[in-house]
Amino acid sequence: MREKEMANILDQVLLRITPDDAERRAMEIIANVLTERINGFAGEYGVHGMLVGSAARDTWVSGEHDIDLFILFPESTERERLEAVGLLIAGSVLDDAERIEERYAEHPYLHGVVNGYGVDVVPCFNIREGSRIKSAVDRTPHHNTFVREQIVGCEGDVRLTKQFLKRAGIYGSELKIHGFSGYLAELLIIYFKSFTNLVRDAVDWRPGKVIDIREHGTRGHENSLVVVDPTDHRRNVAAALSLDNMCRFIDSARSFLEDPKIEFFFKVHQPPPESIETRELLHKRGSMLIGIRFQKPDVVDDILYPQLEKTERSTKKLFNIHDFRIANISSIVSEKNVYIICELFDKELPVVKQHIGPPVWARADAERFKAKYQKKETLSHTHIKDGRYVVDLKRRHTTPTSLLQEELPRYGLGKDVKATIKKQKFQIISEEELLTTSDHKVQNFIHQLLTHKNL
Amino acid sequence: MREKEMANILDQVLLRITPDDAERRAMEIIANVLTERINGFAGEYGVHGMLVGSAARDTWVSGEHDIDLFILFPESTERERLEAVGLLIAGSVLDDAERIEERYAEHPYLHGVVNGYGVDVVPCFNIREGSRIKSAVDRTPHHNTFVREQIVGCEGDVRLTKQFLKRAGIYGSELKIHGFSGYLAELLIIYFKSFTNLVRDAVDWRPGKVIDIREHGTRGHENSLVVVDPTDHRRNVAAALSLDNMCRFIDSARSFLEDPKIEFFFKVHQPPPESIETRELLHKRGSMLIGIRFQKPDVVDDILYPQLEKTERSTKKLFNIHDFRIANISSIVSEKNVYIICELFDKELPVVKQHIGPPVWARADAERFKAKYQKKETLSHTHIKDGRYVVDLKRRHTTPTSLLQEELPRYGLGKDVKATIKKQKFQIISEEELLTTSDHKVQNFIHQLLTHKNL
Repeated sequence: MREKEMANILDQVLLRITPDDAERRAMEIIANVLTERINGFAGEYGVHGMLVGSAARDTWVSGEHDIDLFILFPESTERERLEAVGLLIAGSVLDDAERIEERYAEHPYLHGVVNGYGVDVVPCFNIREGSRIKSAVDRTPHHNTFVREQIVGCEGDVRLTKQFLKRAGIYGSELKIHGFSGYLAELLIIYFKSFTNLVRDAVDWRPGKVIDIREHGTRGHENSLVVVDPTDHRRNVAAALSLDNMCRFIDSARSFLEDPKIEFFFKVHQPPPESIETRELLHKRGSMLIGIRFQKPDVVDDILYPQLEKTERSTKKLFNIHDFRIANISSIVSEKNVYIICELFDKELPVVKQHIGPPVWARADAERFKAKYQKKETLSHTHIKDGRYVVDLKRRHTTPTSLLQEELPRYGLGKDVKATIKKQKFQIISEEELLTTSDHKVQNFIHQLLTHKNL
Repeated sequence: MREKEMANILDQVLLRITPDDAERRAMEIIANVLTERINGFAGEYGVHGMLVGSAARDTWVSGEHDIDLFILFPESTERERLEAVGLLIAGSVLDDAERIEERYAEHPYLHGVVNGYGVDVVPCFNIREGSRIKSAVDRTPHHNTFVREQIVGCEGDVRLTKQFLKRAGIYGSELKIHGFSGYLAELLIIYFKSFTNLVRDAVDWRPGKVIDIREHGTRGHENSLVVVDPTDHRRNVAAALSLDNMCRFIDSARSFLEDPKIEFFFKVHQPPPESIETRELLHKRGSMLIGIRFQKPDVVDDILYPQLEKTERSTKKLFNIHDFRIANISSIVSEKNVYIICELFDKELPVVKQHIGPPVWARADAERFKAKYQKKETLSHTHIKDGRYVVDLKRRHTTPTSLLQEELPRYGLGKDVKATIKKQKFQIISEEELLTTSDHKVQNFIHQLLTHKNL
């Protein structure tokens, strides 16, 4: 019964996410044309083109229009020459693209939009499998070859997996997401053979779980999930996956098996929360909101997001040290601004704080401590508690606003965030401003921060 | 210079604390009369009387009028007979006392007031030194013999030590004080020869300090200070001393040596704090006061005080578990009532609290947790944080009053405190009531709780 119900649901999902013949043919035509353009440089530079990624493996989800093309240079090519000639060829390939951007992985590549398809053209060294790679992207052609061989017949299950991960908000290995990459989804299906096998296994995963398709053995990877790269056993394909996102996958797998529903793959349309709802919710909770806003530094996401995480960590640490207790903290990037938004349990702290000193028997420290606070204005005499000196002092910051304003800029915030704050300052956003923001993205974000509703 | 100054001060102190000839003679006369009364029973019961304690060793401080008399029974006496005959003899010795009370150590003894002297008459077994004692008080005659032999010439230094300890509030080994007993003060002087030697050594004490006069070796005593009983190496004479009181002694010793003053021995008269001062101080601190009051259970101090400590510990634990942060907590016993008084950093907490569940990978626990909170009214969806489930719940107690009222009676409070509370209930005393109390003892106590002023 449950089996049939599940199969039925997966069929419905597949109907919606499998590209039809027309969509597939359109993709093929463009991919072929572009690959041929690379091969046109074979004589001159010894290169050849390779279509990689989900388009090459028929594992893309209908509606995704991404084409990844690699320019394979002979291994002996010098790095500088690869970079220069690579850009030259890529430019020629994307000759008729609508927009072209130069982007950077380990070396520069081009991104362009051709007929509505996002196309990456990436130069790499053509390294024999198992040899040491010369740049991070050199593994990709081997991934491509491996998956193309192994995945035949399971493409639909890869699509189901990707869609399931997307819905759970954990698809993508970029530093903004810390989730599952497309290649990781493919390897999981190669190993488990089907989406249902995968989720049935995942319900019992725990941190330290190892999946080793070619039985390479692991070399002390210390991530939550270890999926040994079949083309390079030194690499953990799941290295970017965070503990919490692994847990979210385990949790979603259990929920899906318990009660299989199409909602595990597609959002149900919900009206966005009204600002008044958030206000009432906050009132009910009795906590307070406070935000920091600063201009979005002009850097790519993979540079920006780690810095935002660092800024969040510093904000947490600052509140902790100063005795403010945090309920929730998270950040959101709008078109021009970054917001760090905190929900705090403590709106205000009393002036008095207890300052714990050295143990009484640590004589030199003890004497320094006593001498220091004999001269200062304190709120109590120095006294002894659990073998240590204690003195009550006046707290400098009794509100989170004063604390953030004065102390946050001194903390580690990441290079570009720090520079932005130094140049442009940052604003403390009051609860009232946050609740009345006209930016719907920020509004929804605050609602989500408080409710943890799976949107 | 410092030497001379110090000697000068100690001389001044000695002048005030050494009993003069008249005081000493008066004490001797009474002690002799009472001891003779015990010896009058020698023929009938084979007992003899022994004057013990500071009166016997000339180590009492002028103005103290305590006489400790022991009735030594032959070792072979049966316990029941010792108790019955002991009380009979003691009653006869205290025949002309103003008041008589039966008190209890390991067995009953009598306390009476004779000519203004507080007299204890205690029966014990006359055990050979080094043999196993039959009751806790059997060591006392041996202590007496040892100290009388060794202390000659150092009596003044014992008086100085006792007076110094009294002033610091750490004299007395009873469970109300957790300080230094008179016998401990005597042993310290026997070991260090003088008060100045003692304080000069104490400045470098640390927990685990061992003093072993007869070089018995220690048998793994685990107290902060170990002073091996020269008459019974199995016993640590400093076992009752708390870590904080040991630290207070170290601290006072350092302060005294740095700036010797008569104030280390005698209180300077200070007008008691006005209620308005305490109110202003509290306002400045921004914290809040709350108290519990209940009828003083009708038990002796050594029974009562450990129960009050337990009640304080439970109150601390209760506040901790429920997220109220405590600045200070202490208890005071007035004639009829007990007060537990707390200073809190948090006056009120928000309704929302975070409830941390099991790790996601602990499947059985995880499923129970999720199922439980799916059915309950919560303030957020169950979500994942650091690998664990978390859900926001409504806090039951947002004020300390409601918390204490409902939860404290369920906690461990000690037998008699619990019984009193069960019978008579307890009252929560508001900050305003505490600040306007007419009981000066309680008023001073609150001021001391906030300031930690060494009164």
